[in-house]
Amino acid sequence: MFSVTVRDHIMIAHSFSGEVFGPAQKLHGATFVVDATFKRPELDADNIVVDIGRASEQLHTICGSLSFRNLDDEGEFAGVNTSTEFLAKVIADRLAGKAESGDLGVGARGLTGIAVTLHESHIAWASYERHL
Amino acid sequence: MFSVTVRDHIMIAHSFSGEVFGPAQKLHGATFVVDATFKRPELDADNIVVDIGRASEQLHTICGSLSFRNLDDEGEFAGVNTSTEFLAKVIADRLAGKAESGDLGVGARGLTGIAVTLHESHIAWASYERHL
Amino acid sequence: MFSVTVRDHIMIAHSFSGEVFGPAQKLHGATFVVDATFKRPELDADNIVVDIGRASEQLHTICGSLSFRNLDDEGEFAGVNTSTEFLAKVIADRLAGKAESGDLGVGARGLTGIAVTLHESHIAWASYERHL
Amino acid sequence: MFSVTVRDHIMIAHSFSGEVFGPAQKLHGATFVVDATFKRPELDADNIVVDIGRASEQLHTICGSLSFRNLDDEGEFAGVNTSTEFLAKVIADRLAGKAESGDLGVGARGLTGIAVTLHESHIAWASYERHL
Amino acid sequence: MFSVTVRDHIMIAHSFSGEVFGPAQKLHGATFVVDATFKRPELDADNIVVDIGRASEQLHTICGSLSFRNLDDEGEFAGVNTSTEFLAKVIADRLAGKAESGDLGVGARGLTGIAVTLHESHIAWASYERHL
Amino acid sequence: MFSVTVRDHIMIAHSFSGEVFGPAQKLHGATFVVDATFKRPELDADNIVVDIGRASEQLHTICGSLSFRNLDDEGEFAGVNTSTEFLAKVIADRLAGKAESGDLGVGARGLTGIAVTLHESHIAWASYERHL
Repeated sequence: MFSVTVRDHIMIAHSFSGEVFGPAQKLHGATFVVDATFKRPELDADNIVVDIGRASEQLHTICGSLSFRNLDDEGEFAGVNTSTEFLAKVIADRLAGKAESGDLGVGARGLTGIAVTLHESHIAWASYERHL
Repeated sequence: MFSVTVRDHIMIAHSFSGEVFGPAQKLHGATFVVDATFKRPELDADNIVVDIGRASEQLHTICGSLSFRNLDDEGEFAGVNTSTEFLAKVIADRLAGKAESGDLGVGARGLTGIAVTLHESHIAWASYERHL
Repeated sequence: MFSVTVRDHIMIAHSFSGEVFGPAQKLHGATFVVDATFKRPELDADNIVVDIGRASEQLHTICGSLSFRNLDDEGEFAGVNTSTEFLAKVIADRLAGKAESGDLGVGARGLTGIAVTLHESHIAWASYERHL
Repeated sequence: MFSVTVRDHIMIAHSFSGEVFGPAQKLHGATFVVDATFKRPELDADNIVVDIGRASEQLHTICGSLSFRNLDDEGEFAGVNTSTEFLAKVIADRLAGKAESGDLGVGARGLTGIAVTLHESHIAWASYERHL
Repeated sequence: MFSVTVRDHIMIAHSFSGEVFGPAQKLHGATFVVDATFKRPELDADNIVVDIGRASEQLHTICGSLSFRNLDDEGEFAGVNTSTEFLAKVIADRLAGKAESGDLGVGARGLTGIAVTLHESHIAWASYERHL
Repeated sequence: MFSVTVRDHIMIAHSFSGEVFGPAQKLHGATFVVDATFKRPELDADNIVVDIGRASEQLHTICGSLSFRNLDDEGEFAGVNTSTEFLAKVIADRLAGKAESGDLGVGARGLTGIAVTLHESHIAWASYERHL
């Protein structure tokens, strides 16, 4: 199995509901360094997994749609705990949509999996991995 | 599949038996930066993999039980080569016990896997991964 | 010149005033990985720069007084752009106070300088350095 | 499952054919930081995955056979796009050969998988994983 | 003293003249991860060292003028060993020009120093630091 | 000012005397990732700070003379707390000796400073800097 990973980041504010979150129930924020991994069993005709330029651009577009916001005020996340693991899935699912729509290039239709890791600090990170 | 990882570290002395270890047969030591990963296919009711506060605390407790020791003098490791890969399993198994006993919280009973990576330097690390 | 550095982190929400900040004028957030460096020309009687346990504790206390907050709502920062470089100075000045008050131990009175670096992402960080 | 990883690097020049590569169609170069991972379900008689000294040496030999070259001029890569993902496979396959020939030690015959990751920058890397 | 650092990278081919360079006398290549640091004793009216957006853009422009090239073929480097330390100075001097010309914003005229570090691998890097 | 840094590491056992060290008074150990920085105001005739091959070799030799040992048993460190900051000075002074003896090459006589940083974990490191 082959994979290619590109890195970007988002900076957001949010808060959590539930005693388990302790002080993070208050409005705070995070930088999430975002690693997006694209997987496939064989390389394409250009000998690559995905057009890395397009992959970076599409990831940057998705990050731009989340960054510099208070996620508590975004309608799509109303009443949702936007945990690191949950946001990893949000980004992975959006990238999957980009792969299926052709925004990652024609060759990207050979992708079989996507994984996204969000680093919230030097001592904690979370991932979500899915099939395509 | 979702995962959450937390990082801690231990500082220990030890020696190895066996020609394969070369100069590491002599008493020496290591800092192991410890990454503990918790996995599950679906998030819990709070939209998380595990209570990250509890996960960090339990990992810290386990690290505390190993750190600032000469492992050659610990009865539980008598006659055992405490290699990086072996210690990864020791920590993973102890975390599995914490998950099963409820020390990681009730939600943690939905965990299906644990992986532990120990970084022994900037150029070498080892992992152990198991089911729950 | 000798130095010792310890690392911690804070997670905060804030916004900025001024066109120069572009999208960061909106409420957003950041994880700041905080590196605090203590300097002195000669080691103390224990052959160290500072009691690293106390230095870590005091840095953790300072980080705790800033983390999991919306800095826009903190009276001490009213009308202030809490930029990364500004927050580096806030933390450095508080550590300087700890050194002078004896909270870092008696030996810490030999410290001659403090530097603090805040990493806001994998591609940007800021520092402030001062004398004691 | 256990694994051990060792890190080395290569510095090469190359160019790519195909519009998808944009400016990388011109002769340029890269440092690839190479992580080689060895996997097996059980440890050997010495309580290790592989003799880490031998693993590092063999990886270094393979890196030496690729580094400080213009890959466009190497007969074995004639007409091939030596992408990061492709080079990950080249190194993984050579390590697999070393495992099978006994160059990684007798114990290494218990290895069941090899994965190689090449980091081309702080924001992009690629991997190839195979069975033994 | 305050500072802000932004990171980018270049990927180039080159070769060196002189026995001291050993195998690096052959055409090879490198990824240089570039850290550009801007320094000043006091913050500007916006409470910052430099407009970090502009600083990143200008660094990206400079990196773009060097990247995806064989430096041996660039007239400006004819007969010059484009060592890591030399390239750090090239980038620092170009950034100094940007600061002086106003391309980093009006506030950047308060900058008093620039430092540039180029990381050529996980085990080697070089820096150049100058006044403004 | 120019600088070049190379990285290596040592793995040692040791213990400390003094209440300030808490649990580290017991025999334990550490991996120290060692960064050695060489400084000079102008580049040499080859356009470099130092022959990086020789610098790496000499640092490796020095690391080899310290690594895989219990420092408590080394005569030269009898009765000495081999703290991270102290060991940074030991390595810096030995590198200074190499520079002066010509072991770093004739060009290295133009070096004006050496700094050594020892990373003891992901959250703590220490440095020593001196003139030549």
